[in-house]
Amino acid sequence: MMDFGIAPRAQEYLDNVKKFMKEEIFPIEDAYFKELRSLENKWVVLPVIKELKAKAKAAGLWNMFLPMPEYGPGLTNAEYALIAEETGKSFIAPEIFNCNAPDTGNMEVLAHYGSQAQKDEWLTKLLAGEVRSAFCMTEPDVASSDATNIAATAMIEGDEVVLNGRKWWSTGIGHPDCQVIIFMGLTDPSAHRHRQHSMVLVPKNTPGVKVERMLPVFGDLDEPYGHGEVSFTNVRLPKSAIIAGPGRGFEIAQGRLGPGRIHHCMRAIGAAERALALMIKRAVSREAFGKPIIKLGGNQDIIANARMSIEQARLLTLKAAWMLDTKGIAAAMSEVSQIKVVAPNMLQTIVDQAIQMHGGAGMSDDFPLTQLYAYARCLRLADGPDEVHRHLIAKFELARYLPKKVPA
Amino acid sequence: MMDFGIAPRAQEYLDNVKKFMKEEIFPIEDAYFKELRSLENKWVVLPVIKELKAKAKAAGLWNMFLPMPEYGPGLTNAEYALIAEETGKSFIAPEIFNCNAPDTGNMEVLAHYGSQAQKDEWLTKLLAGEVRSAFCMTEPDVASSDATNIAATAMIEGDEVVLNGRKWWSTGIGHPDCQVIIFMGLTDPSAHRHRQHSMVLVPKNTPGVKVERMLPVFGDLDEPYGHGEVSFTNVRLPKSAIIAGPGRGFEIAQGRLGPGRIHHCMRAIGAAERALALMIKRAVSREAFGKPIIKLGGNQDIIANARMSIEQARLLTLKAAWMLDTKGIAAAMSEVSQIKVVAPNMLQTIVDQAIQMHGGAGMSDDFPLTQLYAYARCLRLADGPDEVHRHLIAKFELARYLPKKVPA
Amino acid sequence: MMDFGIAPRAQEYLDNVKKFMKEEIFPIEDAYFKELRSLENKWVVLPVIKELKAKAKAAGLWNMFLPMPEYGPGLTNAEYALIAEETGKSFIAPEIFNCNAPDTGNMEVLAHYGSQAQKDEWLTKLLAGEVRSAFCMTEPDVASSDATNIAATAMIEGDEVVLNGRKWWSTGIGHPDCQVIIFMGLTDPSAHRHRQHSMVLVPKNTPGVKVERMLPVFGDLDEPYGHGEVSFTNVRLPKSAIIAGPGRGFEIAQGRLGPGRIHHCMRAIGAAERALALMIKRAVSREAFGKPIIKLGGNQDIIANARMSIEQARLLTLKAAWMLDTKGIAAAMSEVSQIKVVAPNMLQTIVDQAIQMHGGAGMSDDFPLTQLYAYARCLRLADGPDEVHRHLIAKFELARYLPKKVPA
Amino acid sequence: MMDFGIAPRAQEYLDNVKKFMKEEIFPIEDAYFKELRSLENKWVVLPVIKELKAKAKAAGLWNMFLPMPEYGPGLTNAEYALIAEETGKSFIAPEIFNCNAPDTGNMEVLAHYGSQAQKDEWLTKLLAGEVRSAFCMTEPDVASSDATNIAATAMIEGDEVVLNGRKWWSTGIGHPDCQVIIFMGLTDPSAHRHRQHSMVLVPKNTPGVKVERMLPVFGDLDEPYGHGEVSFTNVRLPKSAIIAGPGRGFEIAQGRLGPGRIHHCMRAIGAAERALALMIKRAVSREAFGKPIIKLGGNQDIIANARMSIEQARLLTLKAAWMLDTKGIAAAMSEVSQIKVVAPNMLQTIVDQAIQMHGGAGMSDDFPLTQLYAYARCLRLADGPDEVHRHLIAKFELARYLPKKVPA
Repeated sequence: MMDFGIAPRAQEYLDNVKKFMKEEIFPIEDAYFKELRSLENKWVVLPVIKELKAKAKAAGLWNMFLPMPEYGPGLTNAEYALIAEETGKSFIAPEIFNCNAPDTGNMEVLAHYGSQAQKDEWLTKLLAGEVRSAFCMTEPDVASSDATNIAATAMIEGDEVVLNGRKWWSTGIGHPDCQVIIFMGLTDPSAHRHRQHSMVLVPKNTPGVKVERMLPVFGDLDEPYGHGEVSFTNVRLPKSAIIAGPGRGFEIAQGRLGPGRIHHCMRAIGAAERALALMIKRAVSREAFGKPIIKLGGNQDIIANARMSIEQARLLTLKAAWMLDTKGIAAAMSEVSQIKVVAPNMLQTIVDQAIQMHGGAGMSDDFPLTQLYAYARCLRLADGPDEVHRHLIAKFELARYLPKKVPA
Repeated sequence: MMDFGIAPRAQEYLDNVKKFMKEEIFPIEDAYFKELRSLENKWVVLPVIKELKAKAKAAGLWNMFLPMPEYGPGLTNAEYALIAEETGKSFIAPEIFNCNAPDTGNMEVLAHYGSQAQKDEWLTKLLAGEVRSAFCMTEPDVASSDATNIAATAMIEGDEVVLNGRKWWSTGIGHPDCQVIIFMGLTDPSAHRHRQHSMVLVPKNTPGVKVERMLPVFGDLDEPYGHGEVSFTNVRLPKSAIIAGPGRGFEIAQGRLGPGRIHHCMRAIGAAERALALMIKRAVSREAFGKPIIKLGGNQDIIANARMSIEQARLLTLKAAWMLDTKGIAAAMSEVSQIKVVAPNMLQTIVDQAIQMHGGAGMSDDFPLTQLYAYARCLRLADGPDEVHRHLIAKFELARYLPKKVPA
Repeated sequence: MMDFGIAPRAQEYLDNVKKFMKEEIFPIEDAYFKELRSLENKWVVLPVIKELKAKAKAAGLWNMFLPMPEYGPGLTNAEYALIAEETGKSFIAPEIFNCNAPDTGNMEVLAHYGSQAQKDEWLTKLLAGEVRSAFCMTEPDVASSDATNIAATAMIEGDEVVLNGRKWWSTGIGHPDCQVIIFMGLTDPSAHRHRQHSMVLVPKNTPGVKVERMLPVFGDLDEPYGHGEVSFTNVRLPKSAIIAGPGRGFEIAQGRLGPGRIHHCMRAIGAAERALALMIKRAVSREAFGKPIIKLGGNQDIIANARMSIEQARLLTLKAAWMLDTKGIAAAMSEVSQIKVVAPNMLQTIVDQAIQMHGGAGMSDDFPLTQLYAYARCLRLADGPDEVHRHLIAKFELARYLPKKVPA
Repeated sequence: MMDFGIAPRAQEYLDNVKKFMKEEIFPIEDAYFKELRSLENKWVVLPVIKELKAKAKAAGLWNMFLPMPEYGPGLTNAEYALIAEETGKSFIAPEIFNCNAPDTGNMEVLAHYGSQAQKDEWLTKLLAGEVRSAFCMTEPDVASSDATNIAATAMIEGDEVVLNGRKWWSTGIGHPDCQVIIFMGLTDPSAHRHRQHSMVLVPKNTPGVKVERMLPVFGDLDEPYGHGEVSFTNVRLPKSAIIAGPGRGFEIAQGRLGPGRIHHCMRAIGAAERALALMIKRAVSREAFGKPIIKLGGNQDIIANARMSIEQARLLTLKAAWMLDTKGIAAAMSEVSQIKVVAPNMLQTIVDQAIQMHGGAGMSDDFPLTQLYAYARCLRLADGPDEVHRHLIAKFELARYLPKKVPA
C-alpha cells in the first residue's frame, strides 16, 4: 500500500543521527578542516574524529548501513537511505558513524560472501572501526566501466593466487588505518564472461602492493582518505584469499554495487540539501543593487528548480532502495542505474548554482562548495560513468519491446 | 512505513481500466478521430463514445476520481493517480470513464460545497454522465494567475447575484452536453483578499451567457470539448446559485485545484509513457544509414533520459497525492506546485523528442504527437503558469529560513 | 579584413525592404489572415498578395536571392541574408518579393543546371512570379535524410524517363499557381552512390502525378502553400526533362541546399526577432502581482538569453553565407550544417518562451506564435534533421585528427 | 562590407604566435608544471619563463594587446582577439607574450589615463615585462558587481589620498614581480554616482598594504600568480597617485573593462578549442565495449555541439571587438556583456564534457582539464557575474521599446 512515511524505529535512528550531527559534528567541522589544512602531513586521523567515533558507537549510531541485524540496527536499505542523506551533509560524518565508502561495500561483501576466517580476521575489525579498507577495481589503462575490459590478473598457481596489474581511483587507500584491500582481477579468460574474474582479499602490507601516487580531484587529494593509483606486482596469497572462490568476482561486484550506489546517491541528496541551504542563506542575506539578491533575476526560480530536482531524486532513490529490499538487485537494476545518473547530476547543477550565488566566495575555501562540487563531479564517473548507466537504462526500455533481441 | 506498492483493491481497478483501454478504447481511437475529422460539425458526441461510456459505467469503471465512497469506488487520490495515468494515454478515455476535466473538479466542488438543491439538480446528472460542465475563471484582460486580478463580478443585488465579465480558456464549453458553468467573480472588493470572490453555478442557457468564440490551441479547436471565450452580461441568478455562500470563491478554488492538478499531472505522465512507447517503436523499426535509428547518435540517451524523467515525475506526483490524502491540501501545497511544473515540462520535452525521432511523420496527423504536444503546452499555462508555481515553491523554501518574513 | 558592416548597395536594398514591409506588409497581415481563415477554400491567392507582388516587382525588390546579376540585383548570399532575415518576420513577405521556398531553390537549380529550353519554359515564368513550383525529394517510407535511401525511381526507357514512387512534405504543392515540380529519383542503382539519382522537371499536370493529401503541421495545412503527399505512377516524360542529364541529382541537391539553408536560417532569425519583440512588448505591458511581468522572476534573463542566441545564430549564418560566396559550398559544408542545427533550435526555444510570456493568448490565433512555433519545428526536420547535421559536423571535426579514416 | 577574413599583417602575427607556441611553449608546459608543483615555494618565476619572455620579446611578439602603435604592433582589438585565442590554449603563454591579465588592463589604463610621471615610473616597466601589477576592485563584504556598493575609501586629506578597506580576488598579487597596484575606492559619496570613486596607483610596498591571504579556486592557489585578499589600512600617497584625478574611477573602470573582457573571452575560446581537441583525441583513441568511445552514445553530438558553441562564441566576440574598434565602448556595451556571459559558460560546458569523456583521468592532474574548468568557473564570476551581465543585456533590449523608462 503506497506510503511515503517512515517506520517509527527508523525514524528514531534518523532523529538521533540528526541530533548527533547538529550537536557533535557540524559545530566542529570548520575547526577540523582548518586544523587538517594547517598540517604538513594531512594523512592522519585527528583526535576529534576518534572521539566522535567512540561517541557514535556508544550511542548505537554505528554500522547502520548493514541490513543484517547481526551486525547493527538492521535497517532496510530504504530506511538507511534517509540516514545516509543526513550523513551526506558533512564530509566527516560517514566515517564517524562507520558508514563510509568503500568500507561499507567491503563489509557487505565480507558479510555476504566472506569465509569464516575472512570474517574473523577482517570483518570484525572493520565493523569495530579499527581498520579501514580499499576497493581496487578501476584501471588506468582501460575503460573500466566495461568490466570485461579489466586487465589486472588474479591467476591461480597451485595453492596460491597471484595478482598483477595496476589500479587507480582506489578510494581510502591513503588513510593511515587502511590495512586491507579487495582486489578484482581476471582469473580465467576462457570462462563465461561473467565468470572470468575473482575478488581477492589482500592485506595492504603484502609484498608487491605499492601505492604509486595519490590522485588529485580538482587539485584536492582528499586527505586523509585519498584516491590512489596502486600497482600489484606478483602479489602472492593463499587461494583462500579469494572471496567465495574463483570466478565469482562479477557476481559479487553486482551485489556490492546496488546498495553502494544507493548510499552514494543518498549522500549526494544530503549534499544537495546542504548546498541549497547555503544558497538560500546567502540569497536572503546578501544585498546588491539595493535588494537582497533573492529578489534579483531568476534566483527564486533557481531555488524552486533545486527543490524540485532534490525531491525527485530522493523519491527515485528511495524507490530503488525499496525495490532492492523487496525484489532484489536484479529487479532494481534499471532504477539503480537511474539514480546513479540523476543524483550526481542534480548535485552538480545545484552546487554550481550555489557557487554562482556566493560570488567569488563560493570558489574559495570559505564555503564547502568547491568540495561538494568535486564530490559531485567524481560521482558522475565513479561506479560507472553516466553514459554507461544511460545505456543500461535504455537497454531495459528496449527490452520491453524486443524481448529477445536486446541491443548490445 | 515506506511502501511503493499499491493496495489490492486499487490494483484491481487499475487492472480493469488497463484491460478496458486495451480492449475497448485503443482499438477504436484511430477510427474515432478519422470519423470526427471528416465531419463538417465536429461539436458532437459520436455514438461510439456513448456506447463506451455505458460499458465503462456498467463495469464500475466510473467516477473513480472521487475519494468519497458515496459517489463511486472511493479510491484515495494516490490510488486514483495510477488510473489517471492510464487514462492519460488516450484523448478520449477520460470522458469514457466520466473522469474528464473540468467535470471532475466541478463534481468535487459540488460534492464538498454544493447545497442539497445544487447536488440534486446538477451533481446527480454530472455523476451520471448525462451532462457536462465548464469552469470559468481565467480572464483575457488580466494575468489570472494572480487571483486578486480577477475582474469579472458577481455582485449581490437583493436576492439575486448578477454576473458580468469576460472569461476565456473555459474548457469543455463547446461540448454539446455542456449545460452548466461554475463562474468565479468578484463580490466584495472591500473584504480580505481571500474573501472577495464567489463561485456561482450558472446554467449555460441563462440569458446573458454568450460563447463568443472557440479558441484554437496550436490551430486545433479540440472538438467536441473546446476552449471558449465566454461573455457574461448582466447574468441574473438567485443568490442560492452562489456555491457555499458569497466570498468563498478563493477557498473553493484552492480546494478544487489540488486534486485537479494531481489528475492533470498523472494524465501527463500517461501521455509521456505513450510518447516514449511510440518513440521506441519508431527507433527500433526505422532504418537510416543502414541501421535502426535506435543505434544512431544519442537516441538511446534520449530514451534513458525520458525514462528517468517520467519515473521521477510519477513518484513526485504520487507523493503529492499521498500528502493530499493524509495531510490535506495546506500541507501539500509546495508538492502540488512542484508537480504542476515538473510533469508538463517533462511531457513537452519527451513529446518534442518523439516528434524528432519520427521525422516529418511526427508533425502530421499520422501520429498523435502534435496533439500530445499541444496538451503539454497548454498544461504549462493552465491552472497557473510555471512561473507562478516556481515562485510559490521558492516561497515555501524561503519560509524555512525566514519564518516571519516570507518575500512576496 | 574583418568587417561586420554591410556594403552601401546591399544596405539600400535592405532599407527598402524594411520600408516596404513596414508600410505595405505588416499593416495588412492581420486582415489577410482573418480573410483567409474565413474562406471555405483557403487554397487561393488573395488579391492583396497579387497587388503587393506587383508593387514589390515595380520597386525592384524582386528575386533578390539570386546571386547572378542577370536575374536580379545580384546580391551575394551574405548580402541577401540580411534581407531574408527581414522577410522572415512575416509569413507572407517571401512570396511578395518572389523569394519564397521552394521556388528560390528551384530557380537556382534551373539557372545553374537547366537547359535553355527548361529556362525558357519555366525559369522565365518563375522569375516573373507567374507560376510556382514544388520540390519532391523526401519520401514517407524511408529516412530520406540519408539520400541513398531514396526509393522513388526515374528510370530511362528509350527516349523517355519514367517516374514512380511516393513523396511527401512537398512544400507549395497546394498553391493554385503551382505548375511544375522538381522530382528526385533513382536512375542507376549500379552507379557510384553519388551518381545514382536524377532530378527531373515535371509539369504538375503530367498524367500519373497525383496529390494524395495535404499534410497538417501541428494541425495546420499552411494554406495556400501546403505540404503534400504526392504519388508518381508511371509518369512519362521525354529524357530532356532530366536536369543536366541522368545521375546528377545528388550533385544538384548539394548545390541547391547550401543557399536554401542560408535562406531558411536567416528567415528563422527574423522570425526569432519578431518573437522577441512580441515577448518584450507583452512583458512590459502586462501586469501581474502588481508589476509588469518583465519585473517578475527570470523574465529579463529570458530576454537576455534570447538576444545572445539570436546574435550568435545570425553571425554564424552570415559567416556560412560569406564562406559560400567566397570559398564555395564544399568549404562551407560544416558551417551550413551548423546553422541548420543552431537557427531552428534557437527559434523554437525563443518562440516557446514567447508563448509562455503571453499566457493563454500565446497559444491562440491572437498572436502568430504557434505558427512561428510550427515553422521552427518543421525546420528542425526539413532539409535533414538536427541529428544528421550534428553527425556531419562531428565528422568534419574528427577529420582534422584522422585525415584518412573519417568515421561513417 | 561584410568580411570574415583577417588582414595580412594581423595574420602574420597570428601565424608567428602559433609557431612560437608550437615550438617553444607547448613542448615545455608539462615539465614546467611538474617542476613548479615539486617546489615547496611555488611563488617563483622559473627560468624557462624568463627565457621564453626574452625570446618572445626579441621576436616582436610582445604587448600585442595594446591598440596604440607607440607601444607595440598596434593591432586592433579584433585583430588581437585571434591572438588572444591562441594564448588561451596555454596557462603560461599570456605571461610569455606580456599579454597577461591584469597587467594588460592596467597598462591600458596607464596608457590612456596615466600622468607622464606614472607612465615613466610604471608603464615603462610593465611594458618591458620587468614588473607585474594587480587590480584591487572587488571586495569581500559587498556584492561588488554593483560598483556603487564599493566601500573601500580613497579619501583626500590635504595633498594626500588615504586608502582604507579590504579587497579580494586581486589576481596576480602573489607574483614575485608584482610591485604595483591599481586600487579603486570611494572618494566623494556626495558626487553623482558615476563620479564618486577614484583609481589610485599604489606601490605594493607602501606601508598599510597587506596581503592577508591567498584565495584558493577549487583548492588551487594558482601559483605564482594567485588571487589575494588585501587590506589597505591608512595607506597614504600623494594626490598625484590618483589616476586622472579624483572621481574618475568609474569612467576608467568602464573603459578598462571592454578590451579586458574581449581578451578574457578570446582566451576562453582558445581554452575551449584545447578542451575540444583533448576530447576528440581521447574519443578516437580510447576503447570501451569493443569500440572507440567516439562511436558510443551521444559522443559525436557532444563534439558537434561543442563546435557550434565555439564558433558562435568566437564570432560574437570578434564582433564585439570590431564594435569596440569602430564605434567605441558605449556602442559595444551590450555585445561586451553578451560575450562575458556566452564565452565562459560555453567553456565550462565543454570542459565538463571533456572531463566526462576522459573518465577518472579527466579529474586528475594528468590532463589540464580541471585547471581549465576552474578558469571557466572563475570567469563566470570575475568582472561581473553572469547575472549582472544578463540584466544589462535585457536593459538594452528593453530600451528599444521604452526609450525613456529603462527599468533599473
